[in-house]
Amino acid sequence: MALIVQKYGGTSVADGERIKNVAQRAIRAKEAGNDVVVVVSAMAGETDKLINLANELIPLPDGRELDVLISTGEQVSVSLVSMAIKSMGHEAKSYLGYQIPIKTDSVYGRARITNVKPDKIVKDIKGGKIVVVAGFQGIDDLGNVTTLGRGGSDTTAVALAASLKADECEIFTDVDGVFTIDPNVCEKARKLEKISYDEMLEMASLGTKVLQTRAVEFAKKYSVPVHVRSSFNDNTGTLVCQEDEEMENVAVSGITYDKNEAKITITKVPDKPGIAHKLFGAIADANIRVDMIIQNVSQEGLTDITFTVVKTDLHKATNIVREIARQIGAKDINTDENIAKVSIVGTGMRSHSGIASTMFGALAREGINIMMISTSEIKISCVIESKYTELAVRALHEAFQLDKKPFTKDGSMPTP
Amino acid sequence: MALIVQKYGGTSVADGERIKNVAQRAIRAKEAGNDVVVVVSAMAGETDKLINLANELIPLPDGRELDVLISTGEQVSVSLVSMAIKSMGHEAKSYLGYQIPIKTDSVYGRARITNVKPDKIVKDIKGGKIVVVAGFQGIDDLGNVTTLGRGGSDTTAVALAASLKADECEIFTDVDGVFTIDPNVCEKARKLEKISYDEMLEMASLGTKVLQTRAVEFAKKYSVPVHVRSSFNDNTGTLVCQEDEEMENVAVSGITYDKNEAKITITKVPDKPGIAHKLFGAIADANIRVDMIIQNVSQEGLTDITFTVVKTDLHKATNIVREIARQIGAKDINTDENIAKVSIVGTGMRSHSGIASTMFGALAREGINIMMISTSEIKISCVIESKYTELAVRALHEAFQLDKKPFTKDGSMPTP
Repeated sequence: MALIVQKYGGTSVADGERIKNVAQRAIRAKEAGNDVVVVVSAMAGETDKLINLANELIPLPDGRELDVLISTGEQVSVSLVSMAIKSMGHEAKSYLGYQIPIKTDSVYGRARITNVKPDKIVKDIKGGKIVVVAGFQGIDDLGNVTTLGRGGSDTTAVALAASLKADECEIFTDVDGVFTIDPNVCEKARKLEKISYDEMLEMASLGTKVLQTRAVEFAKKYSVPVHVRSSFNDNTGTLVCQEDEEMENVAVSGITYDKNEAKITITKVPDKPGIAHKLFGAIADANIRVDMIIQNVSQEGLTDITFTVVKTDLHKATNIVREIARQIGAKDINTDENIAKVSIVGTGMRSHSGIASTMFGALAREGINIMMISTSEIKISCVIESKYTELAVRALHEAFQLDKKPFTKDGSMPTP
Repeated sequence: MALIVQKYGGTSVADGERIKNVAQRAIRAKEAGNDVVVVVSAMAGETDKLINLANELIPLPDGRELDVLISTGEQVSVSLVSMAIKSMGHEAKSYLGYQIPIKTDSVYGRARITNVKPDKIVKDIKGGKIVVVAGFQGIDDLGNVTTLGRGGSDTTAVALAASLKADECEIFTDVDGVFTIDPNVCEKARKLEKISYDEMLEMASLGTKVLQTRAVEFAKKYSVPVHVRSSFNDNTGTLVCQEDEEMENVAVSGITYDKNEAKITITKVPDKPGIAHKLFGAIADANIRVDMIIQNVSQEGLTDITFTVVKTDLHKATNIVREIARQIGAKDINTDENIAKVSIVGTGMRSHSGIASTMFGALAREGINIMMISTSEIKISCVIESKYTELAVRALHEAFQLDKKPFTKDGSMPTP
């Protein structure tokens, strides 16, 4: 007998029929002999509706009160799912964040879980109940309602799974799992059977939106096996788990892209100590997150610095950079919004050589110019012209033969 | 400096504009030097919408989960009202039932408040905050969410006022106060300046729906002065308070009517001990509430018994009575749905004579036949044909000169 935590997103509980489906699926898992804890999000669109309600009243609603407001979305869902399960003849009980409690810090709107007390849930599941928990919400030490930020229900599910020492945390979503590439862009996209936590982190933060980054970090920290799968069919999805030998044999697991960034270049910056600190300190003070930073070796005491920010921050960042450029005597500023970042991600990169050159070669063969390059242990990213994005990722998918199952038996890697 | 609890109903927080009005009104009371606690209901229509959501899923939703669901309505309201107050430059803080806590028993859907801990609220109002409390909801000893039944926010407000020892509990509603008669039926209706708790209880249970009965009982028990007034203007409303000498000088304070009952008569019942017990025991077992019961002296060992029930229970009650009638050998059963109960209510009745005869005379002058009469210490009710209802209450209003302010200075009572 296993203990399973199932998390259902907003589209899975969007209406009465789907709520009944969720109830049936939970009951199937229960009747198969498992203990079942269900975590649900707000019905699709509900959180946005509540935020709009607040924004129509006040442009900048108070953080504490906004969390009181939007946490009602999950409260509605847990009650409906519990009712549905009970109407089907099984015992069920809903829990809100404070009832468990799921303790968090006091950062309204993006609180972090600090502690989960599983005792009441353990008692209920031992008593035969299916427990239904409100995702996304918690309570701080002073008893205030908090919420965990977009996608926070994933983190609720993983945190519960960790505290309950669950055998698996199933994340039900509207896709079949994690793919080697966005299936909307490349029809040869292949569903991954397994992916490591680290790869998933790079995939998620790079724009594959199936799982909240914080949930993956949590899963990694407590070694919770996470099964990402569709709530609309019974197919096996993708298991997010600890790195194993098999994975290390695969150089590249997936390809991602991000069209949401813009780049800023400052030309002919005097190459003196403290310049970078001054520039990026000012940007950080304005709460702007910088992604890639490139500074090449200087010529004649002058250098160029290029970095990327999310597009919505471009205007604000440019104003700051202009002022700093004036102060430090840099020559000029260029900005470019028509860029995309394409990345290859793979745990096996650590032990395989030639990966970068395969990537650059694939892009070159399509005549795509690389503007910036950034590498980490398990990821290589290139910034290119935005219009080439789809062409680039398809070329990379092809180059690393991601449509084929990797040859893992003999440790050999498919190469072009 | 006074401490005021203000309660706003669903129509007063129905949209953004009205929520801002509520915020402004609370701030005005605060700026006038008072400590202010605001209790709010769900936005108009919201509770019904949530119940429909559940009913679409399941015909008979689980009680515990239904309370989890419908308590979100007030949660939405408190967050929005608090945001609005803060956006206007005042400090505000919302409280949900469990955060105070407002302790109740575990009867889902119509829980009774057992205990209110005002400590946190006291601390916040001493700190200068306007405290905004979710009406209608509480928490039981096991930490389950409960709700107090229709109109339960009134009870929340009065219970809070009692526990805070507030100087006044203002109930803001969509009418100007408590009237001598339904203004829709009689244009001479006069707003009462004062009414006693007992009179209000009789008025409320007889169909004047401005204040939940339980709230009045609570107010009476803890001597909380309740000010019923409109949220759409600044007029003084009606003060519901302890009986005073002035009130005792007024024989009749108001006229009410109820068209929602039906009567059942069993004829030629053998007049033996235990018959009434058998009949009404069976009806009580079926959870049917009986209002008036009339049994006259018997003739030749046979008597007639007539009683009233709410119309929706008539069919069920008739079936039970038919079976009992057969068992006890009664002759026949008659039922009548076309009835109305008209009542006069007044604390002064206790010390004034001739009130009943004035009532009967007024009805007789209009040619209205009285079918049943029932009296209590401060109320006389007559059952008449339903079609005469409006005519009857207008005639009674006229007979007791309720359109005129009572002459209280010299203790004289207006008589026709």
